This record gives sequence, structure tokens and C-alpha cells, in this order.
Amino acid sequence: MPRNAFYAQSGGVTAVINASAAGVIETARRYPEQIGTVYAGRNGIIGALTEDLIDTSLESAEDIAGLKHTPSGAFGSCRYKLKGFDKNQAEYERLIEVFKAHDIGYFFYNGGGDSADTCLKISQLGEKMGYPIQAIHVPKTVDNDLPITDCCPGFGSVAKYVAVSIREAGYDVASMAKTSTKVFIMEVMGRHAGWIAAAGGLAADKEGASPHIILFPEVKFDEAAFLARVDDCVKKYGYCTVVASEGLQNEAGEFMSEAGSKDAFGHAQLGGLAPLLAQLVKDKLKYKYHWAVADYLQRAARHIASKTDLDQAYAVGKAAVEMAIAGKSGVMPAIIRTGDNPYTWNIAEARLDQVANVEKKMPRDFISEDGFHITDKCRRYLAPLIMGEDYPPYFNGLPVYVQLKNTPVAKKTGREFVLAK
Amino acid sequence: MPRNAFYAQSGGVTAVINASAAGVIETARRYPEQIGTVYAGRNGIIGALTEDLIDTSLESAEDIAGLKHTPSGAFGSCRYKLKGFDKNQAEYERLIEVFKAHDIGYFFYNGGGDSADTCLKISQLGEKMGYPIQAIHVPKTVDNDLPITDCCPGFGSVAKYVAVSIREAGYDVASMAKTSTKVFIMEVMGRHAGWIAAAGGLAADKEGASPHIILFPEVKFDEAAFLARVDDCVKKYGYCTVVASEGLQNEAGEFMSEAGSKDAFGHAQLGGLAPLLAQLVKDKLKYKYHWAVADYLQRAARHIASKTDLDQAYAVGKAAVEMAIAGKSGVMPAIIRTGDNPYTWNIAEARLDQVANVEKKMPRDFISEDGFHITDKCRRYLAPLIMGEDYPPYFNGLPVYVQLKNTPVAKKTGREFVLAK
Repeated sequence: MPRNAFYAQSGGVTAVINASAAGVIETARRYPEQIGTVYAGRNGIIGALTEDLIDTSLESAEDIAGLKHTPSGAFGSCRYKLKGFDKNQAEYERLIEVFKAHDIGYFFYNGGGDSADTCLKISQLGEKMGYPIQAIHVPKTVDNDLPITDCCPGFGSVAKYVAVSIREAGYDVASMAKTSTKVFIMEVMGRHAGWIAAAGGLAADKEGASPHIILFPEVKFDEAAFLARVDDCVKKYGYCTVVASEGLQNEAGEFMSEAGSKDAFGHAQLGGLAPLLAQLVKDKLKYKYHWAVADYLQRAARHIASKTDLDQAYAVGKAAVEMAIAGKSGVMPAIIRTGDNPYTWNIAEARLDQVANVEKKMPRDFISEDGFHITDKCRRYLAPLIMGEDYPPYFNGLPVYVQLKNTPVAKKTGREFVLAK
Repeated sequence: MPRNAFYAQSGGVTAVINASAAGVIETARRYPEQIGTVYAGRNGIIGALTEDLIDTSLESAEDIAGLKHTPSGAFGSCRYKLKGFDKNQAEYERLIEVFKAHDIGYFFYNGGGDSADTCLKISQLGEKMGYPIQAIHVPKTVDNDLPITDCCPGFGSVAKYVAVSIREAGYDVASMAKTSTKVFIMEVMGRHAGWIAAAGGLAADKEGASPHIILFPEVKFDEAAFLARVDDCVKKYGYCTVVASEGLQNEAGEFMSEAGSKDAFGHAQLGGLAPLLAQLVKDKLKYKYHWAVADYLQRAARHIASKTDLDQAYAVGKAAVEMAIAGKSGVMPAIIRTGDNPYTWNIAEARLDQVANVEKKMPRDFISEDGFHITDKCRRYLAPLIMGEDYPPYFNGLPVYVQLKNTPVAKKTGREFVLAK
């Protein structure tokens, strides 16, 4: 008798996380003898805690396939981290209650490092609380900061967006610089790791090309060196473009720009670095500037997604189900690079206890000695990840994105659950 | 004996202004008996004043064709407005000196309203200063604020970028809103006219779809009404997305956000409205917010250009040359809409004295009564302008944009010219 599966999306969504969902659901449908219905959590793990489940079997094959070209989290995502077993056992008891009520034997959790930790805890429910369940993590994060896997699905597309955008902005500024803007600053995501900012460097494929400067969270901001470099670029090339990571820190290790509010994981909410840097350039160098903050546009930009990223996002969803079918638990499909040029990769199994809460930073030798650009080694690593285009269908000039029916499953526990604050 | 032509790009560049350049150059090459060489001004009219001309005949047919998929101004643009004949006659004398030296009988100027004024003045050189020259304006401006023409090349592509981006961001925020960001604000260009902001409205093609609110320069900002609407949307849809024009004004008619610096035309340089609105939402409604400022990314985004816009940009370049061949001067090819559905259009002749310095604002009946969205009439107008995709070629995951040789023409006047400040 097949047991049902639970799938949920967690943390910040991406342009391709729904491709992973499609990978999970389409693959599960191929194993009807092992997997019954795939229930999705509405708004991630919250859907499990509140018994707010979505019956994905009521979605057409066409709509599930359409997830491959639809950005965002089709079932809703959340920022909600389960506490440890000792800190809030009621949450785990509730999960078991809901899982039992709906005969859930498989748990697929699609997220980043925090979520891998949640998934690991779920995989221990059998041992610690007597409810056996196979928990497989499906990697996803634009931050690209999960260990073991060559890269994280979602990253390649934001990387492509950033590289394309800074190339385009570079052309724009170059043509205006004689009498107008000379310095352009584009702020990108990346809280503690400079992977996204680094990706902008791919656009600079020849001497003098945009971007001229990259500011990484890994390199403490040196105002004098930065201003000198901006001035050099303007004198040499007529203009200067900068990709700045939102996580840029000052010498004291504080974020250069802090909004002061924190998200549910306790991370500071960042934003507004670009105008700060622009003001600095204006005050000290007197150059006319412009700045952009791409914010969610960068991670939602399915219209310019990387084909490589899309393929990998689908593949990890598919592999997660295959691992479950093979009896695995507490693991994550990891992308293993087997060649650089041409880029080849396959999927291997990573243990979640080696993934959870481990943050992969940029290696120091991916950043140039002066700290303002990427090295050839970094370029070799990043280049394949933005390769290929996979355009969504368009209607009336706009991309057609799928909206699922998201039909709720009848509740069975007869009990409300109040979420921890 | 054919006379030579001068072509220059002026003001803010766009994703498709180079397609107009291709239209001018390719068409001129088809009339060797009437038009000799097309010289381009390096950095717009400044290239003429400083005798810094580019010989476009040295560019391959392939590279000129490549301009159709290359954003920015391939010859450089400038923000530099000629003064009146009475104010700085030396500039006109200098232009005549350079034009004479290079036997220039045709002047093609590719720009917006300010540039149309320059072009008109050039068309009067014969009458006022005894140097006959045919001056044809080639319309271009993302602001879409030129009169007579149905729309302005460059606008359709930024419109498409904004509509696509706010749809994508809307999906993103919708999926996160349960526990995270509830309000997203995207600031877009449009100094005095809300055309670009309005275009965002195209994404909202059904009840509840993003964007929920549009803030126009044409509608004075009403803080209380805005906050009430944001709150309503969050309560009704779970989230709220806002497209805000940089030119938004307060009740007193002042720009809500002013950087304090001015560009060469005396326009205030704007930016930073989105964080201001976001802060307001946070302070008054306590909702978690995110904001983006697309800035140059929106007008440089050739990767998501509108095919309609591209076709029109090319067509006005081509028509400008054909008008010159037909003996016209002081005119501009205007796009005339002949049908809405399917969209049909042709090119007619507009007199520059009816174009120069006239700013076309959004009609009031394009804005909903409450001032927060577009009407169906506006939608009918805008919808065709973003239709169709025309992707650039890609290599290694990045768009391949052309860089011309831009070979300088030997100077003949033997005289330097100092630009007015």
C-alpha cells in the first residue's frame, strides 16, 4: 500500500524552484505503487503545522509541466524555522499528528541551509519520536551557499540576470558618459556570500568591459581604495560600473546598510547600499551617478532564466523522489561537476547532517588580489551555470505563468495549531 | 553629386535606438546617388561641434545589422541642448563650418523633445544663416512624451520590461507574503509623464493580479489614500505590489524625492522614491516591505525588448532617410495607429514646429478615477506596444551586443571649438 508524500517550498523563492516542484510531482506520479498522493504544504512547513495541505493530484499534467516556466513558489513558501526537539516538541508532535492523519511517509523539503536543518530533523522523527518518515531535501537558494553541491538551483538564473543586466547597463552608461552619468552602481542580493555579485563579473569578458568593480561581502569595504578605483576607471574608460553585494561590510564587520528590521530567521533585512555608495561617489569624486537595486526582480526573473539552472532544478526534484523510492532518508541530491568545458554534471547523494547550517563562502582565490573582481578560476566555475536560455511562452507580450488550482485537502485532525511566534 | 549625411543620438539612450541607427544607415546605403557617406557624431551633437565624426561606411553590413539587437547608443549620446540662435550664434556658425567642411547636406537627429527642438533649429540654418541642410528628426524616448506620434520608439521596450518585471515580482511576493514581505514597491522612470508606470498596469490582467497600485506623476500623492489602498490590498489579496513613477509629486507639486542635482537640460535628477514609500508603509502599516529601483536596467534591457517597438524604431530610421530623399526637412516620421486589434500602424510626416518642446502627458481618462490604476482605454492603447519578442543572440549565456569600430573622420576645419557650459 503506497504512502503519501508531502512537498513544501521554503525560504526565498527563485525563478526555478517550481521546476523542482515539477520534478518531484512528475516523478512521484511515475511510481504509483510506492507513492500515493503528493500533498503540498500551503506556505511551506506552515501548511503541515496548520494542516493546510494542497492536493496536487488534482492539478493537470499540463499545469504541473507549466511550473517549469513559472517563477515563485506555486504553493506558497515561508520563512519559518523549526526549533530543536528540546525547544519546541509540540511542533514535532503536531507534524506527526498531521502526517499520520494523511498517511504521509515521504517528506520533500525544497529550500536552503535553514530548511536543510528542518529536513534533517524530520528525518529523525522515526528514531526520536517513533514516526518513521523518509525526508529528502531538495536544494534551492539564490545565495548558492549550500555545501557539497556544485551549485544551488536558483542561483544560475539570478546569476544570469545580474550578468545580463550589468552588461546592458554598461553599454548604456558608456554611451552617455561624455556629458551625463559616469558611475553606475547596481546592488544585488547575497547576504553573507558574494556569489551573486561575482556572477556580474561574467559580463566583463574583455579589458574595460562592464562591470569594472565588484564589492563582495567577503572583502571589507575600503573607502579610499574603492574611490581610487572608481576614479581610475572613469579616467581610463570614461565611465565605471559597480556591482555591489547587499552584504558589503565595513572595516568593523558591520553591514554598510542596515534597514534595522530582521526576518523570521533573525537575519537583518538589508537594502539601500547602492544609494549610499552613489552618494559617496558624488561627495568625494563629484561624478554624476545612477544606481539600481534589483531586489526581487533578480530572483523572480524567469524570463531570463538559465537553461542549465532550470535543468538542474528539475533534476534535483526528480532525484529526490528516486532517492525516496530507493529507501533513502536524511539526504539531499547534490549536483556534482564532472567537467568544465563542456560543462558536465550528475547527481549524487549528500548527507543532510553535512549540509544543514553549513554556509559555503566564496573561496578567497575566486576573488582577485585587490578584492575588486573575480579571478579566472571563479569565471571557470561560474560560466557554465548561466549557459543556455529557456524562454517562457508569451501571450500579448507578457510571459504566461501558471497558477495552480491549489485545492485544499479535507482536514482530519480536528485540531487547530497555533504557530510559534 | 551626392552630399553626405550626419546622424547623431541624443539624450537618454534606449534598448532600440540603435535599431533606428540601423534603419538610417542601411536605408542611406540604398541611395548612393543621393547620399554619400553617413557620418555619425561621436556623443551626439557634441561630435558635430567638436568635429569628432565617425565614418559609418567603414562598418560592415553585418555590424550595422547587429545594431538591431544592441541596446545603448552605439556612437555615444549626449545631454546637450543648443541654445537659441540669438543666445549662442557661435554654436550654429561652428556647426555650419563643420557641415561645410564635410559636405553634409542631411541631418538626422535621433532623440526626444529637446532634441526635436535642436533638429528644428538645424532645419532653419538655410533660411537664417544661409546654409541649406535637410534636417529630419528620428523620434526616440522611453518617456513616450512626444506629441503626434502614436508612441515613441524606446518606450515599448521599457514598457515591456516594467510589465514583465512587476508580474514576476508579484508572483514572488504572493508566494512569500504569509510570513514575509507583504508590500513590494518598484520605482520606474518617467519624469513628468506616467507612461512607463502605466505600462506596469498591463501585467494586472485579472482581478487581484500584480500590480495593485500605480503612482503617476499626473496624480498628486495622497498619503492617506495610498496607505488605505495598500492596507486593503494586503487584507484582500495577502500582499500588495506598487509601481511608482520617479516623478511622483506631493500636494504642493514638488517631487517626492529629489536628489538635488540637475542634468545638463536643467532637469532635476530623481531617484530614491521607492525606499521613501517603503519606509512610509513600514512606519504607518507595519508591513514587511521590499523595494526595487530599476533605473537604467529598464531602458537598457534589450534582452526583453518589444518586437513592436523594435520594428517601429527601425521604421522611423528608414522613413527619415526616405523623407530626406523626397526633399523634406523640418519633419519627423510619426507612427500613426490605424487599428487596435490587431494593431496596425504606418508612418506619416509630422512638422517639427509642432513637435519640439511639446510634452504629451497621459490623458486623464487613461488613469482610473481613484488615480491608482489604468483604465481599459489606457490598456487598449498600451497593449500592442509590448507585443512580440525579439531575442538577441547569446554566446556563453550572455547576449552578444555589437561594438562598432567607430573610426574617426580626419578633421578638416583646423579649429578647436570650446563647448558652452
